[in-house]
Amino acid sequence: MSAADLVAVLLASHLRYDFKQPSNPANDHLIFSKGHAAPLLYAAYKAAGAIDDEEMMSLRRFGSRLQGHPTPTLPWVDVATGSLGQGLPIGVGIALAAKQLDGSPCRVWVLCGDGELTEGSMWEAFDYAASMRLDNLVVVVDANGLAQLGPARLGANPDLLVQRLVAFGWHVVDIDGHDVVEIDQAYAAATDPALTAVRPTAIVARTLKGKGVAAVEGKIGFHSRLLANPEAAIQELGGQRNLLIQVAKPDDDSNGQLRTGWTVASLTESTPPVLELPGYKKGDQVAVRAAFGEALSALGRIKDKVVVVDAEVATATYVDRFADAHSQRYFNVSIAEQLMVAIAIGLQVRGWTAFAATFAAFLSRAFDFVRMAAVSGVTLRLVGSHPGVSIGPDGASQMGLEDLAMFRAVHGSVVLYPCDANQMSQLLALMAEQEGVSYLRSTRAVLPVIYETSDQFRIGGSQVVHASEHDDVTIVGAGIALHEAMRAAELLEQHDLRARVIDCYSVKPIDAATLRAAARATGGRLVTVEDHWPEGGLGDAVLEVFGDVEERPRITKLAVSSMPGAGTQDQLLAAAGINAEHIAMAARRLCHTVARQDTPV
Amino acid sequence: MSAADLVAVLLASHLRYDFKQPSNPANDHLIFSKGHAAPLLYAAYKAAGAIDDEEMMSLRRFGSRLQGHPTPTLPWVDVATGSLGQGLPIGVGIALAAKQLDGSPCRVWVLCGDGELTEGSMWEAFDYAASMRLDNLVVVVDANGLAQLGPARLGANPDLLVQRLVAFGWHVVDIDGHDVVEIDQAYAAATDPALTAVRPTAIVARTLKGKGVAAVEGKIGFHSRLLANPEAAIQELGGQRNLLIQVAKPDDDSNGQLRTGWTVASLTESTPPVLELPGYKKGDQVAVRAAFGEALSALGRIKDKVVVVDAEVATATYVDRFADAHSQRYFNVSIAEQLMVAIAIGLQVRGWTAFAATFAAFLSRAFDFVRMAAVSGVTLRLVGSHPGVSIGPDGASQMGLEDLAMFRAVHGSVVLYPCDANQMSQLLALMAEQEGVSYLRSTRAVLPVIYETSDQFRIGGSQVVHASEHDDVTIVGAGIALHEAMRAAELLEQHDLRARVIDCYSVKPIDAATLRAAARATGGRLVTVEDHWPEGGLGDAVLEVFGDVEERPRITKLAVSSMPGAGTQDQLLAAAGINAEHIAMAARRLCHTVARQDTPV
Repeated sequence: MSAADLVAVLLASHLRYDFKQPSNPANDHLIFSKGHAAPLLYAAYKAAGAIDDEEMMSLRRFGSRLQGHPTPTLPWVDVATGSLGQGLPIGVGIALAAKQLDGSPCRVWVLCGDGELTEGSMWEAFDYAASMRLDNLVVVVDANGLAQLGPARLGANPDLLVQRLVAFGWHVVDIDGHDVVEIDQAYAAATDPALTAVRPTAIVARTLKGKGVAAVEGKIGFHSRLLANPEAAIQELGGQRNLLIQVAKPDDDSNGQLRTGWTVASLTESTPPVLELPGYKKGDQVAVRAAFGEALSALGRIKDKVVVVDAEVATATYVDRFADAHSQRYFNVSIAEQLMVAIAIGLQVRGWTAFAATFAAFLSRAFDFVRMAAVSGVTLRLVGSHPGVSIGPDGASQMGLEDLAMFRAVHGSVVLYPCDANQMSQLLALMAEQEGVSYLRSTRAVLPVIYETSDQFRIGGSQVVHASEHDDVTIVGAGIALHEAMRAAELLEQHDLRARVIDCYSVKPIDAATLRAAARATGGRLVTVEDHWPEGGLGDAVLEVFGDVEERPRITKLAVSSMPGAGTQDQLLAAAGINAEHIAMAARRLCHTVARQDTPV
Repeated sequence: MSAADLVAVLLASHLRYDFKQPSNPANDHLIFSKGHAAPLLYAAYKAAGAIDDEEMMSLRRFGSRLQGHPTPTLPWVDVATGSLGQGLPIGVGIALAAKQLDGSPCRVWVLCGDGELTEGSMWEAFDYAASMRLDNLVVVVDANGLAQLGPARLGANPDLLVQRLVAFGWHVVDIDGHDVVEIDQAYAAATDPALTAVRPTAIVARTLKGKGVAAVEGKIGFHSRLLANPEAAIQELGGQRNLLIQVAKPDDDSNGQLRTGWTVASLTESTPPVLELPGYKKGDQVAVRAAFGEALSALGRIKDKVVVVDAEVATATYVDRFADAHSQRYFNVSIAEQLMVAIAIGLQVRGWTAFAATFAAFLSRAFDFVRMAAVSGVTLRLVGSHPGVSIGPDGASQMGLEDLAMFRAVHGSVVLYPCDANQMSQLLALMAEQEGVSYLRSTRAVLPVIYETSDQFRIGGSQVVHASEHDDVTIVGAGIALHEAMRAAELLEQHDLRARVIDCYSVKPIDAATLRAAARATGGRLVTVEDHWPEGGLGDAVLEVFGDVEERPRITKLAVSSMPGAGTQDQLLAAAGINAEHIAMAARRLCHTVARQDTPV
């Protein structure tokens, strides 16, 4: 209710949106960062004629598109909101794509609550949007001054808020959010180049929570509470009405085609007909992260929609290879992982094929954004470098030891973990075609190339890298641990034990058929090894494969079991209990304790 | 090297620290938020006589306390840093405890990089510290202007940084970070009440990266690179020296005892001799989250060191019960989950028993802080409300469906998940005694009380809630799913099938012995059910129990398998496939397909 006047004036006079063609790239974007104001958004859709009375009354009912918070099950919603502090950062990504990549005339309108202004992600967005001079972005702050428990620290002090936004480089307009003339003038100012001076605009709208209904107006304690007397409230608000607003459509002649200039130029540059991935000679020593950088750059050459977002670590992730080759499609948001993911989502919303990469450990910073990307059903491609203890002396703060667990627990996600340069190239190419949330675990270490460039991989696949006719035990690994597993197989031969080694490069979905066949062929003896905490990673993914089937092998899971400190790669792999010697020991124990008849195999 | 002068002057003239007694509560706190400057911190320790040359030379070696980034394996380090943007927020919590709770005369000195100023968590901290008027907090920003890839957005523009800090309500001193006189005056200003005017102080120090060595001074491309000629650099810096600085000790008469006033008063108020937890009558319908609020408040009555941090959702988590009873030990940081966790860590560092609570889903926002808390080895107690689809119509954005996976993947963590009010009270009391990272999953739903107040629980325990002499199948659940499991057992009786139902309230550590005995007693047939995604939660914890043992039951895992939308609790539990009917169906399938001889049991 505090933002109703703001939205009404926007729809009536400033928003340009064709509700019949939500996919028109010239449409403005309207994002409710304060997702809990969903009823107002749905009311706006009804006023625009996009939904009818019957659907309106299905709010929060089972099967309804009108959920408690907005999601893209509604075609006019770009991303799900409801976790505060996310709508604006993603809106910044959308505005960035529209202005710098698409050359679309559209504007991005974001309605923010004043409570969510205490989320740091909002200030990451304010900072970056100003630095990128996104004058096609308009933020409307519904400063009703009341959070759930009491005064909103900033909303209750709009002068302070204005001061901060100015300091962050924004064009700020301070208005009475219930004065329709002031609102209209503010929107006009937000779209006037002379006033914005290539700055994003923030409209600080001083409003009243529960505006228009005396029983709750400006009062605390009614957040997400039902009205005692809704009928009286409706009367107080002017009674039942059926306003229909003709929302202006975007000019068709500016239908979001690419701005002439670099973009078109880069498209016309001699684009190779097919993707030529960099190839590596079997046996060569190559840093897997370097192969990632090269493959990403190659992808950029053939796919002109590929864009990459970085958080100040391009030289460590090797994203710099892409940045050097395709500088206009590379965005470094600086050290701000939540923003990095939000920008990638925003670019993707505008139809770009976005990748974002940083240290695997620091992606944990953006887990809530990843979680919400799955709720949105948007495509999000993330790459994490420096996983596990194998990174060496930098210490535990830099080691990604929970990333596999984090990304496996994202609905519908794909989790890939290559072990050599050629496999990295191919999995990255597959990832570019993948929808939904996907994660690629890169590796800092220099490792021998074990695959030919001709070897083929697939999402959901695996590769048997070592096998004989009569194997005694199966060892399942991925990434650097796969190399330790191969070395363990050699150690085992000295004890007359033959190991079948499986490269489980697709951690999710996992290749259940191959794993089951291997378990059957190796007497129901299976060892998993991973450079990750024991919970939620590769080992658990393998256990899952055998939970509800007739033949259930005995599975020894090796993973990082103690908090790592300083040391070299080899010292830390040994201390973690995941090097070849530990794998061989576990395999031997299994072979000695598990007689074939012990298992149902 | 850019911050060396800043730290030298601090040690020589302003820091008050007894390196022989790191636990002296009157000691100042020195936190390197820019953890990658660890060599400077270690050099300071050496200059203070705390470590010797030999240890200094063990930097980054296996087994050394001097890791690539600081950790509390060194007694003078409060918390591990190295994930940027965390040292300051935690420092704010330490300053808050020292000023508002301990009445300690100590100061908190935080050295920040300019690169990390783009992390939103820094601005959450700047905002909150000013609002709490923490004039015992001094932040030194090493504005060398260079991030890893190029200019640091803010460090390269110190005027803008000063403007923003002023707008955030800080006392700001702008200096040449290599002029020892200016540095000394800045520290004096930071400790002068007339100048600070009850504001925290930020010293913006304009510095040169690589100061003192021409080969790298002010140059990009040398971040975490080795010097080509270290010997020449040492000579250029003045040659080998062995400076020993006498660091002033805190005044012993102000030895951090509690300030007279409310704290003492509250202690002398009729404190009950033993913890009297609220009790609930078996069969009563009680919201588990309400029981959490009551138990937390009771804990606050008996334990005067219990403090609670909230992120603007006290009325939803029922933390308001504690806030009403113990307002001086309740801190609402507003909507900022990273800050909430950081403040809890900071309070704990000062010896307080801190709890922090918000929606389970929003704790994903703070995963990087939780991960780092484990690296620090500090104690952190978190409570997540509103887990799973059972919260009803608010939608997926509000549902914690990955929290069990997230917290299980934290090294050394404890994960608890009560199913009724009496169990909630007891598990919360156990959690208050628990060290390390612990997580309690609360529940929004109103559920029948199934336990007596006399029933006992333990970390690592479980409870058989339904059993007979000859059970056909084991059903393992926790929280709301446990109630569905009990209802499923009734449904199964109609099919002449007897289910043993286990309440697995301690998800980590898990009660392996009880689960194995149950699997053995029920023909190797086991069903797990949880209101959580299939990955990383209770089901995977149970699978782990049976991976590497001789007797491996067949396990059907039920979990939320599709993205939930709007609906009622019952509609959503049914749609997710985790209600009693689905559990009974899965159990019947197991009983029909699994003959006793199918399993090794």
